[in-house]
Parts: sequence; C-alpha cells; structure tokens
Amino acid sequence: MDKQAEMQPNSRTVNGNEEEKQVSKKALKKKQKEAEKAAKKAQHAQQQSAAEPEDDYSTGRYGNLPIIQSKERVDRCFAEVKDLNPKLKDEKVWLRARVQTSRSKGKQCFLVLRHQKWTVQALICVGPNVSKPMVRFSAAISKESIVDVEGFVRTVDPKIEACSQQDVELHCEQIWVVSAAVPRLPLQVEDASRPEDSEELATVNQDTRLDNRVIDLRTTTNQAVYRIEAGICRLFREYLTKQNFVEIHTPKIISAASEGGANVFEVSYFKGSAYLAQSPQLYKQMAICGDFDRVFTVGAVFRAEDSNTHRHLTEFVGLDMEMAFKYHYHEVLHVIGELFVNLFKGLRDNFQDEIATVNKQYPSEPFKFLEPSLVLEYKEGVRMLQESGVEMGEEEDLSTPAEKLLGRLVKAKYDTDFYILDKFPLAVRPFYTMPDPNDKRWSNSYDMFMRGEEILSGAQRIHDPEMLAARAKSMDVDVEKIRSYVESFRYGAPPHAGGGIGLERVTMLYLGLDNIRKVSLFPRDPKRLTP
Amino acid sequence: MDKQAEMQPNSRTVNGNEEEKQVSKKALKKKQKEAEKAAKKAQHAQQQSAAEPEDDYSTGRYGNLPIIQSKERVDRCFAEVKDLNPKLKDEKVWLRARVQTSRSKGKQCFLVLRHQKWTVQALICVGPNVSKPMVRFSAAISKESIVDVEGFVRTVDPKIEACSQQDVELHCEQIWVVSAAVPRLPLQVEDASRPEDSEELATVNQDTRLDNRVIDLRTTTNQAVYRIEAGICRLFREYLTKQNFVEIHTPKIISAASEGGANVFEVSYFKGSAYLAQSPQLYKQMAICGDFDRVFTVGAVFRAEDSNTHRHLTEFVGLDMEMAFKYHYHEVLHVIGELFVNLFKGLRDNFQDEIATVNKQYPSEPFKFLEPSLVLEYKEGVRMLQESGVEMGEEEDLSTPAEKLLGRLVKAKYDTDFYILDKFPLAVRPFYTMPDPNDKRWSNSYDMFMRGEEILSGAQRIHDPEMLAARAKSMDVDVEKIRSYVESFRYGAPPHAGGGIGLERVTMLYLGLDNIRKVSLFPRDPKRLTP
Repeated sequence: MDKQAEMQPNSRTVNGNEEEKQVSKKALKKKQKEAEKAAKKAQHAQQQSAAEPEDDYSTGRYGNLPIIQSKERVDRCFAEVKDLNPKLKDEKVWLRARVQTSRSKGKQCFLVLRHQKWTVQALICVGPNVSKPMVRFSAAISKESIVDVEGFVRTVDPKIEACSQQDVELHCEQIWVVSAAVPRLPLQVEDASRPEDSEELATVNQDTRLDNRVIDLRTTTNQAVYRIEAGICRLFREYLTKQNFVEIHTPKIISAASEGGANVFEVSYFKGSAYLAQSPQLYKQMAICGDFDRVFTVGAVFRAEDSNTHRHLTEFVGLDMEMAFKYHYHEVLHVIGELFVNLFKGLRDNFQDEIATVNKQYPSEPFKFLEPSLVLEYKEGVRMLQESGVEMGEEEDLSTPAEKLLGRLVKAKYDTDFYILDKFPLAVRPFYTMPDPNDKRWSNSYDMFMRGEEILSGAQRIHDPEMLAARAKSMDVDVEKIRSYVESFRYGAPPHAGGGIGLERVTMLYLGLDNIRKVSLFPRDPKRLTP
Repeated sequence: MDKQAEMQPNSRTVNGNEEEKQVSKKALKKKQKEAEKAAKKAQHAQQQSAAEPEDDYSTGRYGNLPIIQSKERVDRCFAEVKDLNPKLKDEKVWLRARVQTSRSKGKQCFLVLRHQKWTVQALICVGPNVSKPMVRFSAAISKESIVDVEGFVRTVDPKIEACSQQDVELHCEQIWVVSAAVPRLPLQVEDASRPEDSEELATVNQDTRLDNRVIDLRTTTNQAVYRIEAGICRLFREYLTKQNFVEIHTPKIISAASEGGANVFEVSYFKGSAYLAQSPQLYKQMAICGDFDRVFTVGAVFRAEDSNTHRHLTEFVGLDMEMAFKYHYHEVLHVIGELFVNLFKGLRDNFQDEIATVNKQYPSEPFKFLEPSLVLEYKEGVRMLQESGVEMGEEEDLSTPAEKLLGRLVKAKYDTDFYILDKFPLAVRPFYTMPDPNDKRWSNSYDMFMRGEEILSGAQRIHDPEMLAARAKSMDVDVEKIRSYVESFRYGAPPHAGGGIGLERVTMLYLGLDNIRKVSLFPRDPKRLTP
C-alpha cells in the first residue's frame, strides 16, 4: 500500500503445535532448518495466492495490513477473547489477538487466538467467502503475530479443552495481519508455560526467558504474577492511606553513603560524585521530623552487593513506611501486622484466579497467616532453634539456613507462613536502632518473615541526636557524613518506628516461587543489566 | 531518671513571638545573643525551681520526660488538636503537640500548641495544681519542642484568631517535654509561613528552607503541598487502575544510555559501568509487547542536565503510562485527556482545604480546565503565536517564552489552564516517534500544558522494527546500543502510544507556584544534593 507496508517482513511460517525438548544446540539447529523450510513453504503459499488472483474471491478479506500509523480513525467495535461465550452465538464479531498456534489440514486452518490469558479457537474454512488462498495465507501466519479477524461465534460440542473459551469457536471470514512475528522465535510461549519439572516436554531456562522477556511475559503465569505484584502495591498503599499515612517520594541520588558506606553504587554527578540510596530510611525519618506523622513510599532501592542468590537483586522495589508513636514501638508493630493481614486477605479474596494460574505452572501450598499476626521474641526463636539442635548463641545473628528452619518450626507449631520476630540483638542491627531500655543486649527492632524468609526489617529509630551520634560513633560510622541526618533530630522529634518491605520478596514468597527473577519485570543482579 | 534522660539537652529558652526580618548576618548575631540570654534565663528558672522543691506542690506534674524508648506501654488516650471543640467543654484531655509560640506574664503562660496544620491555645496558670515553678518551666520550653499536656477544654469568648481551634483553649495541669528543640532554630516556622512579598515581616529564602527542610516542612503550606502531591499520585493510579492499566516497575539502572546518550548519569556497576534511566519509556513499551496492553508506572527518573531553572530537577518523579490501541493514537490521547480531567476534578473536590491553605501563602488563580480537554494542533498553536507577533516557522520547536505566551493566548481564547498540543513537527521529537502517515513534516506526538508549561510529553511509538531502526539511523542514534529495544518489536507488537508526566511540575503548576523546589520534598539539582 505505501512505503511503510513494504517495511513489514514478508516471510511467514507454519509452526505446528509439536512439542519440543529444552533447547539444546542440536535442537536449535534442527529448529532453524524446520523454520527455514516452513518459511519457504509459506512464501510458496503466498506466491501461489498471488499467482491465482482471478479465482480468489476472498480478495479484500485477508492480507497484511500496512503499519498502523493512525492514518484514520476506524469506527469498529472489537470483542475481547475473554467475553466470547455461547450468549454471542451466531453473532459476528471483530477480534484482535495473537496467533498462539496454527494447524492446517486441506481446506481448513485452525488457529488458537490468544489475548493475555484467554484463548479461543478460530477456524478458517473454505466456503462462500473464504477461498483456498485465504486458508493458505492463514496457515502461513507465524506464531505470536497479531491479527484482526472477523467471524461468527459458533457453539461447539464437545468442549475445546485446549482453550480458555471452551464452548465457542470463531468461524472467520476476514483475517488481517496487524504485526507479524519473525518465524523463528527465541522461545515458545507453550514451552515457557510448562512446570519446570516437565520431563517429556521442553521448558525454557531462566536466562533465555530474561533475554527474551517480551515473549516470556506473555505466558498466562507472568500475566498473573505481575497483576498480583501490582495488587500488593495497591493493597499496601490503600491500607496505609486509610490509616492516614501520607505518600512521599525520597531522593535516590544522595551525597553520602549514609548507612555505613558499604554496598553502595557510586554515580558521577556533574563534576563531583554521589551515591544511590540503599533505602529511603533517613528521608522517611526526616519527613516524620517534618510533622507528617505517618508516611510511606514506594520506590527503587539499590544494593551494590555481589550476591548471586535466588533472593538478591541489585535494584528492587521498596515498600517503606515510618510512623510516629506515643509510648511504645509496638503501636507501630501492630499497624504493620495489620497491614500484612489486610494484604494477605486482599490477595486471597481478589486474586484467587491469578494465584491459581501461577500455581498451575509453579505448584505451592496456599499461604497461611494468623489474625492477629504471630509475634515471637528473638530469644524465643533462638530457643526453638536450639531445641532443634542448632548450635547458636542467644545474641548471634540468624544464618539463612537457621532462618529457613525457624520458618518451618514456626509453621509446624503455629500453622502460619507469616510471623514477626521482635527484639533482635542490638549488636546485629544498624546504629540508628533504639536499644532496649530494659536490657542492653536487645533492641527495639524486628524482622518479618514469609515462608521462612525475611521480607521486612524495621525498628524504633533513635530520635535523640546525642544518643544517635554516640551510637554511630560506637559502631564506627563517620558522624560527620551523617551530620544533616543527626541534625534533623535537634528541632524536636517524636519517637517513631517503621520498616522496609521488599516487594519482589513478598510476591515471590506469597506465591511460593523459588527465584526472585520470576517476580521482577526486568531484574538487575551483578551479572544482568539487560534488557 | 536514667542514663538516656541525662543525654537530653537541658537548655531551654523563651522565644517570644516577636517577628524578625529576613536573616542577615547582623540579625543572626543579635538573635544568637538574645537566644543566649534566653537560655540563661531559662536555666535560671530551672535552677530556681530546683532550689525551691519543698514549696513546689506541682512536682510530678511537669518536667522533661526521659527519651521515650518503649520502656513500657502506657494506656493513655490522646486527643488531637484538630478535634478540640466546644463539644468537649470541661473535659480533661491529653494532647501531644509542638510548642509553636510561648508567651508568659506573671502567673500565666500561654502556649500555642501545633499538630500538623492545627493549632490551639494552652494556658498554664498558677492555681491549686499549678505552681509558680511549673509556670516558669512551661515558659522556658523552647519553640518546636514536642510536649505532652493534660488539661481541661474550656470555651472562650472572643474567638482566638491566631489559632485554628478558635472557640476553645486548654487549661493545663500537666506538661511534659517529650523532645526538646534547641533554643536557636535556623529558621522560624512563622517566618517560613509568610507570603514572599511580606515587606514588614521576615521571610525565609529558598536555600535556608531546603538546608533545614525538617523545620520548613512543618509549615501549614508544606503540610498541604505534600498531601496534594500524594493526592495527584493516588488519583493518577486510581483512574488508570479503573481503566484496566496494570502497575509495573521498571529498572532505573540501565546498561546503555538508550535515548540518545546525552544528559545521562553514569553509575559504577561492579567492574563495569551503567547509567540511570532518563525515563521508563523503553520498558513500558516492552511491557506492551509483553501483552500487558495498558501499563503505568510511578518512579524516579534522572536527567543529568545542568539546567538551573525554576522548573528543572536532576531527579524527579515520573508518572508514566503506555497503552496499546486499535487504529488511531487518539484513542490513547482521549484516555490521557480524561485522566487529567479526572485528576483536576479530584483535586478540586477532595483537596479544597489544602488548596486554600497553599493559596494563603502563595496566592494564585483557581485552576481552570475544560471537559473534554482542549486539543489544538501544533500548527494552529504556531498560527496563534504568529498572529501575536512571534516570528517562528511552522516546524520550529517552541521556545520556553513562546510556550508561556501560547498558554496565555489559549487561556484568553478558551478559558482553560490545561490543553493538549497535538501533531508536533517530526524533526523535534525522538527517533521512536511515529511519523504522520499523511504529511511527513508532522508526527503522531503531543505535549500537554498547565498554565503554559509542559507537563507531559507523549506520542505514538514506532512498533515496527525496521521502521524504528531506520528512524534511529536517520537521527544518528547508534542502533547497536538499542538492539534489545528494537528486537522487542520483532515478535509481534501492537500499535501503542503513551506519555510521561512530571509529578512535581503538575503539583507546582496546579497550585500556581513559581519554583519546582517548593514541591519536591528533598529536591536535587546540579547544585544541591543534600539533605
């Protein structure tokens, strides 16, 4: 049609729905050959259709659309795949969707069309409006291409088990390619959708997924995961907003590596240098000193740790909150506990479909929680571990295996996947943590755990400038570097406590997933900066 | 009482509510002297009270609390300043608040107590439960200190004009200092609360404010500004969530300076280097290619521009959205237009108090908007400017003064402070902008303006990989560096458009403020990295 239309790739291929093993080099080669063969076949089919224009009574009913460049507004009502059901029987609808699979046989071509997590079968079958060349064209459309189809909704019996819309199919009379996918995809959506322990059938490894994230994100599992993650953010904010918290935004570029100095990314800042904030901690506290009383913030936090584990990222989303209290930091602990109960209920009640979808590919036990949340003292946790044979001192920090074991012990004893561990040893917490006034070994600090892994760390903060400076000094923090932070408390500061939640960890652990890269849209770790 | 109590500063001062001129060196010196004098006086008062313990029948009713370290839970119900009204007449209440001002005269001490934007008068007057030393102690409490008071709510006549709670005052029988402010504050909250054109009375300049942000944030204006800003975020998210947008989080650390390469901060990333994202643009688009159809994200964006203007920050909060459409990018333009109408209505209807509060210090005309939003074509905007005597070509970019003038022209003609300028010249837009299919001089792109300043930039993006690579090449963008971005479109991509909104600009312009540093909690510019 015009210049832009010419720029669209012309090659098409038939990619049957044969199943493939995990992509090995050999398999890849074979695949490439098959794809080339398919491409040739498709080209041939197209040439054929071009060669027999006179007997093609379907001309004007199929083809490649020019690039949609907003040339004109088209007044056309589209149905959505998810809404196709027997109530629409015999109605004619337009649909825009991806070609998930394609299968042709003589005068018929069956496509599975997908939109997000919904699928429907479409049939292009030779008839009064559909010519043989049109069927051939349809069969040659590459998987993952986006098409517009017009057709009649027909009920079917028996049900189409392979599709989400099982009671209907679409008998197409028009089919137009809106955006063609290349014939050779780096991964197949079907393969990326399988449980990882599939022995017979192909799966896709983590790096291939992440390298080709735009395809990987199309799996029903990922469509669900990121909706759940968005839900966690929303529930976090809604609950705190109802409790009179004010949302704030804190700077990510900071002048000094405030929290001790290690594990911080350096940034060139005009002629000088700066750092990326490891948390919004100091700024949340300044907002409290600025009389906001209750604040929360959702934003990127950065850790320059060379940790290559299943649960560390160099950049993640922090859900942070801070709150002034009257006499005891348990006033805050209570609010955070309620926040989580509210979150777990919200997920359970509003995201059951999405959770079930994720469980299909990655089975896990339903997440259990108590109301009110279980609060254990650190020393009680240590005692439980000691009773299970772990050798550790009362004031020692929890190792990762101990943390996990304690999670299992708590689950066995209290039947909850979420609990709060309160009153950590002072020695293992940052300098700004308020010491326990009754016993100097302990501190007014807490961690919270989901399925045995830490997802929140928090504490009452020292709000007295002299005490803060003294604690910093005793822990070898350069007081000069945190001067403006310490100064914040010289103008009257209310007692306050708070905490920071790792969004991706909450999503991962709620869903019982085994790797944080499964819940970060474009994860960053020491070895991955792209895409 | 204990070790921690000793760490609390003992010096107190009487800082009367005398008004001061903008802080000059001389004034500062004078102030210091006064403060020292006051501190001495206060010390004297305290010593006196210590010297006459036998006749102090108020012992146990006032003093400095030890640092609140959560030693015990206190079961005490607190009233809030905002809730004090004649209905509580003669009831005894506890209150925690800041001492805003203090004035003593013989046997009486008047305090204005403040919590956030609410104030109430408190009276400590010699009587059966209140001794002279207790009055002296109260008078010596430094401004901005946090106190707990217990007292009776009494109605007053005439009204107390200086307070938000005008019909009542509190007759105190206990007063305890929770957290003392230093006697010499770097700025006075009253001064920071005045209109900038106050000729008689002191005001506080921008840098002093920002250097001492924790005090500056306590003004009723700032309490209102950041609640409005939080409201803008909330309204943005709620509207888009209702329209089936999914919230996503995009990485801030990126491997290549994707959008042309200029004005980007470099980060050391383990043994290599990386950059800070100038926008979530490419990632939003990848999410669209990943079948999310409609996405939004709220997060920090970074610009290494050495622009020292009233409206540039090096780090700000981006409210970004991206949306697949069927045939014409105006489908998206319509949604964004509706988003803004919904935002303006939400602010008008839910934040009238806060807006009025800000207007008291910074007067501005009420924000006007049309429903539906006004959409002008770029060339029509140029024509209006030309008719007003501006010499510029049709395809030239708008200068900042031209932008402002156009805002005034549009306001005069259409009576709206918000409008959309559509179909910008292709030459002045980024490489990924979709050219107008009907006229190659134009593009499917738009900016949106509030009070004559740009607050959103957006466009239909090129979703065809060949066309995208060709456009990048023609604009000297290194195609190799954006390979993974271009690749995203090879697997089938729907036509899509979107835009990015600068949160601080929206807040500033909605409120008619003159500097973006007034609406950024801890602003970052080429010269400011602290606090």
